[in-house]
Amino acid sequence: MTEWPDPESQSRKLYERGSKVFAGGITRIQPWQEPFPVYAARGEGPYVIDVDGTRRVDLLNNFASLIHGHAHPAIVEAVRDRIGLGTAFTMPTESEIQLAELLCERVSGFEWVRFSNSGSEAVMSAVKAARALTGRSKIVKMEGAYHGSYDYVEVSLDSSPTNWGNEPASVPYAKGTPKGVTDDVIVIPFNDPEAADRIIREHGPSLAAVLIDATPTYMGMTPITQPFIKAVQTATRAVGALLILDEVISFRLHEGGAQTLFGIEPDLTTLAKIIGGGFPVGAVAGRREVMKVFDHRQGRPALPWSGTFSANPVSMTAGRVSMELLTPAVFARLNALGDLARRRIDETFAAVGVEGHASGVGSMFNLHLTRQPIEDYRSAWRTPAQAKAMFALQTRLVKEGYVISTKGMGFLSTVMDEAIVEGFAQALGRALRAGALDLVA
Amino acid sequence: MTEWPDPESQSRKLYERGSKVFAGGITRIQPWQEPFPVYAARGEGPYVIDVDGTRRVDLLNNFASLIHGHAHPAIVEAVRDRIGLGTAFTMPTESEIQLAELLCERVSGFEWVRFSNSGSEAVMSAVKAARALTGRSKIVKMEGAYHGSYDYVEVSLDSSPTNWGNEPASVPYAKGTPKGVTDDVIVIPFNDPEAADRIIREHGPSLAAVLIDATPTYMGMTPITQPFIKAVQTATRAVGALLILDEVISFRLHEGGAQTLFGIEPDLTTLAKIIGGGFPVGAVAGRREVMKVFDHRQGRPALPWSGTFSANPVSMTAGRVSMELLTPAVFARLNALGDLARRRIDETFAAVGVEGHASGVGSMFNLHLTRQPIEDYRSAWRTPAQAKAMFALQTRLVKEGYVISTKGMGFLSTVMDEAIVEGFAQALGRALRAGALDLVA
Repeated sequence: MTEWPDPESQSRKLYERGSKVFAGGITRIQPWQEPFPVYAARGEGPYVIDVDGTRRVDLLNNFASLIHGHAHPAIVEAVRDRIGLGTAFTMPTESEIQLAELLCERVSGFEWVRFSNSGSEAVMSAVKAARALTGRSKIVKMEGAYHGSYDYVEVSLDSSPTNWGNEPASVPYAKGTPKGVTDDVIVIPFNDPEAADRIIREHGPSLAAVLIDATPTYMGMTPITQPFIKAVQTATRAVGALLILDEVISFRLHEGGAQTLFGIEPDLTTLAKIIGGGFPVGAVAGRREVMKVFDHRQGRPALPWSGTFSANPVSMTAGRVSMELLTPAVFARLNALGDLARRRIDETFAAVGVEGHASGVGSMFNLHLTRQPIEDYRSAWRTPAQAKAMFALQTRLVKEGYVISTKGMGFLSTVMDEAIVEGFAQALGRALRAGALDLVA
Repeated sequence: MTEWPDPESQSRKLYERGSKVFAGGITRIQPWQEPFPVYAARGEGPYVIDVDGTRRVDLLNNFASLIHGHAHPAIVEAVRDRIGLGTAFTMPTESEIQLAELLCERVSGFEWVRFSNSGSEAVMSAVKAARALTGRSKIVKMEGAYHGSYDYVEVSLDSSPTNWGNEPASVPYAKGTPKGVTDDVIVIPFNDPEAADRIIREHGPSLAAVLIDATPTYMGMTPITQPFIKAVQTATRAVGALLILDEVISFRLHEGGAQTLFGIEPDLTTLAKIIGGGFPVGAVAGRREVMKVFDHRQGRPALPWSGTFSANPVSMTAGRVSMELLTPAVFARLNALGDLARRRIDETFAAVGVEGHASGVGSMFNLHLTRQPIEDYRSAWRTPAQAKAMFALQTRLVKEGYVISTKGMGFLSTVMDEAIVEGFAQALGRALRAGALDLVA
């Protein structure tokens, strides 16, 4: 058995093949890993086994989407049955009704649902829905918040001290982003009630929607504060805009989502990840008076929207089984495991004597090589040297047998236990002691 | 057994349940059917069996995506095996390389590939890639052409005589479409070389891309002409813009796609539908000098792009098996079956004495209640009365046991044969004789 990153490894050979057919050698950026990625062969519960036979604890779970780990028997069985009956139809199926009924039962603000193939599609359609309902074109989003690949919501996703301005500037993400896109996106800082109130009211008459995330990914998954919720909701309603809550990731926090946990009352919610049970999915949900923009029964809808694979019965079936497994008791246990993980990470940093801590909430954690609290995008932002140090720590952890993201993020699953968390804490201690942090600036 | 649209049918009961959780009672518009949709229980090869036990020939194949019909044994077996090994990973897998290698072997213009979850995502990213490479923001698209749900490519998707103008106007699709969107989209008529050349050159310096479809869906799937290809390619290159060919549907025409069949040389191609083997998929493919906008290895890419479920091993495995089944001989047989279908449809209209014909190419056909040739969007456009007549004909065909779209479109699969085509022609004859066309204006 050869170990990554051995030049003779199967991962290396696959990377060479991949480099012939993919820009960058791989078809998604997320899995990138210097000097080349580890290739997965299969997954078993909390473990991912690579193509060289090395077994690691998978703390990433396909970026938070596999809340029951890999190949959960109940999901595998249901999906195998479903596949024999056909995987996609032009016609509707009962499976889409079952998953929508489950979602509507769990969240008081969900009256009508609309499924898509991804979180990106869901967010794009939620923004378009808000425009269709209000007849306005601008949106407000939070600096540094990730909401998928629709160009409007990518604005200021990776702004930096050189361009983010004193008050958050609208910084284009991709090269060639049309000026019309940045002009139509206004940026607010996370968890700053005063700025949010002021900026939302300033642009009020032209605002279709205010798009927020309760535990933003690139801000350490730090929870939203009550004053911020109150300020954003009040100002958004005052100006007649829609509040869109992106729960693509945060829906793993509670059976009623982050909106139930934190008491947020959005007009529209976007979902994806866990509601597909490991298969491609997305959804927009909300009150009928908003969701009616999709209704075709009173003539042409304000926002016609379909999608070839949307609500396919495989994603719907896997999603329903996955969600049914998530009872309140299961959520409570999973979140307690997250509390333990963050505590043991903090204790490990302290025991080794390296500056560092874990942020996050529920089953989500994010390592930081600083004790400075992560409060928003700017306090979470890392210099290139700091980013490189985290990358070095992450590489060391992969070698120790634990997969986290190159930014130090992890997402626990229901098939993990205290022993896995303790194993990770021990591995972190070894990685820190082994000098992986020579690069700390 | 109750038959659709019996008020006591299971379909009716599901529609009532669906109406409680979905805007419009269903989660996609496509399946809509007055007075309520037929709900699918399962598929078997060329057949779809509804929840009341009625078996029909499925000529829609989930809008052209199921080129081997429902639950093809080779795909079912491969996917069932794959699911036991895990359905999604943060890491790359060999399955994405295998599908990309197959695509690059078949199409000379494919050097690098990038996978997404849908055709909509693929088209959005191709447009963004063109902007990132050129630093320009405007695109040209064809009047009435469907390219998914990205708002820029929805412009003039359903323009009508009241707003389409003398020269094609940029007509917003959804309510509240930002002015920045319509300002950045220029519209050309399909298969009009003179207008295409003139309009592309007029907007030349600001054009990032020209987006075309070789067999546009809402233009009767009429094939692109050689003079139009030549005019578009020459003008696009002259102004330094990228040519994007949307092969989401037309890739079912030939092992090298419509670009090989018609001799088109795009810079970027978008794919979806058949390359996923019945599972959610999308892709952008093209030459390295263009696809490099996605490459992260020389620092931050011009267009960073990921996606949680992109290139998941289930879609990749199903897609590879599906594509491997599509040999040149299989394509030839399937296209010949399409020729037979269009001929028998035309003969049936003539025999019954109703004005009508079928347009289309290869395995795709579109019924029209006119003998006027379908040459572009404007000649394909139907008055409300004409649209209603086609809906009535389609409803009659559903009752006869044949599923086509409400616009009269059909897509054959490799598991169909001459007997199915003949059965459809006979059913069409009965439907026409039965007076379904009382509504013809």
